[in-house]
Amino acid sequence: LNISIIGAGKVGKALAIKFKSAGHQIHQVFSRKLDHAKALAELTDSEPTNDIHSIKNNADIYFLAVKDDAILELATSLNINQKIIVHCSGATALSIFEGIHKNYGVFYPLQTFSPDIEPDFSELPICIAANNFETEEILTKLAKTICPNIYQINEGQRKNLHIAAVFANNFSNYLYTIAEDICIRSEIDFKILLPLIKQTVRKIESSKPSEVQTGPAIREDHGTIQKHLESLKKEAPEYLDLYQLMTNMIIQSKNK
Amino acid sequence: LNISIIGAGKVGKALAIKFKSAGHQIHQVFSRKLDHAKALAELTDSEPTNDIHSIKNNADIYFLAVKDDAILELATSLNINQKIIVHCSGATALSIFEGIHKNYGVFYPLQTFSPDIEPDFSELPICIAANNFETEEILTKLAKTICPNIYQINEGQRKNLHIAAVFANNFSNYLYTIAEDICIRSEIDFKILLPLIKQTVRKIESSKPSEVQTGPAIREDHGTIQKHLESLKKEAPEYLDLYQLMTNMIIQSKNK
Repeated sequence: LNISIIGAGKVGKALAIKFKSAGHQIHQVFSRKLDHAKALAELTDSEPTNDIHSIKNNADIYFLAVKDDAILELATSLNINQKIIVHCSGATALSIFEGIHKNYGVFYPLQTFSPDIEPDFSELPICIAANNFETEEILTKLAKTICPNIYQINEGQRKNLHIAAVFANNFSNYLYTIAEDICIRSEIDFKILLPLIKQTVRKIESSKPSEVQTGPAIREDHGTIQKHLESLKKEAPEYLDLYQLMTNMIIQSKNK
Repeated sequence: LNISIIGAGKVGKALAIKFKSAGHQIHQVFSRKLDHAKALAELTDSEPTNDIHSIKNNADIYFLAVKDDAILELATSLNINQKIIVHCSGATALSIFEGIHKNYGVFYPLQTFSPDIEPDFSELPICIAANNFETEEILTKLAKTICPNIYQINEGQRKNLHIAAVFANNFSNYLYTIAEDICIRSEIDFKILLPLIKQTVRKIESSKPSEVQTGPAIREDHGTIQKHLESLKKEAPEYLDLYQLMTNMIIQSKNK
């Protein structure tokens, strides 16, 4: 297929490179920053632009891989006849395209992209939705050329999946940041915690997380909890509320 | 060495089996539940007991692998002459043995143990402390027979390491539990999130967690945050406070 990519950020870049390597043609790459568009265009043998109005209507599919709050404006600016347009957002409704385009969908790779680590498309899931059956079929076929794990999910599911991902990914990374900060204050190398973090994840590959909870809260070890709270109060009071809240929630979860 | 293990729970079991396979002799295994003592004694060719007073004083080292609040009582019940006694707790002071025993230490494997998954002693760190140099040396030598990653850490460091581990391990597992619960409510298989969770951990193996934070909070994407809060309010209000608190903390961390 002939694909144009709107947005040269982490998601746009990962998709463009993967589509290209799967044999598709990347037609145009748009970014507000011409440098970014040029860099990705060079990698994917395509045409860069920083003018949304110069995006031509002769691609098959248009990928909006941009910030959520830029989707509507850019979608409105695109004149693509009846070609397919998709966004890649977990948090944006499919219906954002209603009344603007005729064939549209969502192409949501459930993954955290980073500039340094290549995404593993053999492992990550791609969630697909569309406003009609033909579009859904084309998107599913396209997705299958780069990834074996394709899910058709409805709007409510995608919304909740995105919220679940915020807890499982964004918030857990912030817990690692807190752990890192506590280590730095004690002149401990944060890397000492990596085997523990990796083992925690290994456990939930085979068991439900609700069944493998460990630690002072689930044991209702109030002596240890008290010691931790006192220590945080003195040395890192900004984490006190969070420790207290999560401890209470874990204790309450036992009684469910 | 000749080792007696007090406590046949997850930690006691993992250590006893590993010591045995490294060529040490497991002398006696104590558990309040005779069944548990017998099961572990069978695995390690040792003598089970549920009577702490029948623990003999002819082992070289005594491992207290029990709940934190049982350490003092059991340590007091042990009559072991001047042999070495250690506990395996991240949250208990070394000085708990002061005035009770002469040679003592801490032997703290920084890991989450589970009955189903074998711990990887080639990867996990063991933190050592002792009340005198000779004891520290013996414990370090012993630790090196089962694990290459040995750290001498002081009391303040171990306390903070334990707090950091609660955030990085216990609390992050609880976030996975929340994500699981949200998935179940929407009839989504929680396993769809595993590649994302694994990628989050992969990122912090090469980068600092504070430098790879992603998600609506760090982007200050208030539109998405608002949508998530409204959805949680309706569908899972018990997670609303935590979402709000962590989001605020992440936003504030940007301005540090």
